[in-house]
Amino acid sequence: MNKLEDISLIVADWGTSNLRIWGMDHQGNIVHTANSDKGMSSLEPSEFEPYLISQIKNWLPREENARCHVVICGMAGAKSGWKEAAYLKAPCPPINEEKIIQVETEDQRISVSIIPGIMQKSPPDVMRGEETQIAGYLSKNPDFDGIICLPGTHTKWVHISAGEIVSFKTFMTGEIFLSLSEHSILKSSVQSDGLDLTSFLEAFEDTYSNPALLSSKLFGLRAADLLENTSSKLLKSKLSGYLIGSELAGAKSYWLGQNIVMIGNDDLCILYQKALKKLGLNATIENTQNVTLYGLQQACRGRYSQ
Amino acid sequence: MNKLEDISLIVADWGTSNLRIWGMDHQGNIVHTANSDKGMSSLEPSEFEPYLISQIKNWLPREENARCHVVICGMAGAKSGWKEAAYLKAPCPPINEEKIIQVETEDQRISVSIIPGIMQKSPPDVMRGEETQIAGYLSKNPDFDGIICLPGTHTKWVHISAGEIVSFKTFMTGEIFLSLSEHSILKSSVQSDGLDLTSFLEAFEDTYSNPALLSSKLFGLRAADLLENTSSKLLKSKLSGYLIGSELAGAKSYWLGQNIVMIGNDDLCILYQKALKKLGLNATIENTQNVTLYGLQQACRGRYSQ
Repeated sequence: MNKLEDISLIVADWGTSNLRIWGMDHQGNIVHTANSDKGMSSLEPSEFEPYLISQIKNWLPREENARCHVVICGMAGAKSGWKEAAYLKAPCPPINEEKIIQVETEDQRISVSIIPGIMQKSPPDVMRGEETQIAGYLSKNPDFDGIICLPGTHTKWVHISAGEIVSFKTFMTGEIFLSLSEHSILKSSVQSDGLDLTSFLEAFEDTYSNPALLSSKLFGLRAADLLENTSSKLLKSKLSGYLIGSELAGAKSYWLGQNIVMIGNDDLCILYQKALKKLGLNATIENTQNVTLYGLQQACRGRYSQ
Repeated sequence: MNKLEDISLIVADWGTSNLRIWGMDHQGNIVHTANSDKGMSSLEPSEFEPYLISQIKNWLPREENARCHVVICGMAGAKSGWKEAAYLKAPCPPINEEKIIQVETEDQRISVSIIPGIMQKSPPDVMRGEETQIAGYLSKNPDFDGIICLPGTHTKWVHISAGEIVSFKTFMTGEIFLSLSEHSILKSSVQSDGLDLTSFLEAFEDTYSNPALLSSKLFGLRAADLLENTSSKLLKSKLSGYLIGSELAGAKSYWLGQNIVMIGNDDLCILYQKALKKLGLNATIENTQNVTLYGLQQACRGRYSQ
């Protein structure tokens, strides 16, 4: 067990619906972690500081006047978050240390900074949090040239060249999946924990080759439930396949002939990887926690001597 | 004011979330109407009869032993409705009088029957309620050969020939619109009562020509809100345009070179009509209440002497 005195830096990924915090020692080892569902969407700006303190109070140094750096990425920097960290404009490196903002706190035991997200003017697009994961990946692979795909609620396809985010495109695929699973006529048809890869890939190929049929294929899931008693496991797999098939057709200009690295939830990355394999592409899956931590640490490097 | 004794027939369209009832005299004139949001989804099977009686009790004849016919179309005939009316299989005429089911009631003042929906084996598809509107339209246009489009929560494209439903295709367009407007990150961006036709048509053309970009265009609405402060009226119009553009691309095999008749909510029909006009097609909009009533009356014709 590490001593409390060991803490050197606290980093956090504060998203829309989740908060993950890591306490690190002088060697960069994780000595504390905290996870919570108190994301940006459930907090008022004034609630961020007290909530953060409630999570980390036992980690903080006890010496008087000691101040612990806390570096945060994600939606905490949104307009309706803790404090707005104005977007950087792509093309740009994923993190610009000079643009990291400082947040004033009442509690003098912490010194908080937030990493800005990235915007793209045309077509309009935004990210917050993913830039830090990308920075983390690039910190270990500085010569990478290709595509980073970050599957999730809002899946992002990001073109990287010469250490910069050149352009990116976001698809609402994950959020459409959730909305329809929880708030549509499909709700009772797709409640299942499992996944059938064959059904997923069949459905993927259907909408990949004919993306205009997406909303018709989606209603077909309900009809298949009523008429053929298809299991909810197969129907859920098809729902996922139809949505990802349509996305991969739309993201073709990003992945065609490219090296692809995936960052995100492992199960979801594996689905994308299997689908990309069908298109003749090899995608490498990175460890998301690792690249997030590398990115958060990289943001501190020039800033705080460790 | 008509006398209570005048009632001859009660007809109803009992959908998933709405109930509309009409009381008619011997000449087929509407003498009573009732509307309610007590659709199939908010009632247990045993609650249909008492709820119907509560709506029509003042319309019923007062003579002893008098029995009033009640003919119903829609989701009341679904498996989880009042009583299941097994689907007819397309190709078939929209209504087969011999397949209309009788529902036993405790209240002997009414004699209730339910019109079955239509199913299609491959690709699997279903309708309940629309078949009655189609029958109503065909009762006045018996030689119609072409496409009937019924925009709504689940928009249907129906190929009619020789008085039969040959095939049909349902798109979840309306339900995706509702799910995303009410349960996604777009919620705060698209709350508006108005509609901007220019934005609608621009967005329509975007996804009509490239339907694979649908889920990316949808996220772009959120980005446009954040970066460009686009008004919610324009964003809502674009949301509608993107979804209908993708649908019309998917429904091309239905509308290409065809006569198109539209049945449904007027505002929505007008949007589809404007979009179809962009594709060089003229679509005629029918009065939905009229065709529904014609269909319900047609179902009774051979059955009850009026």
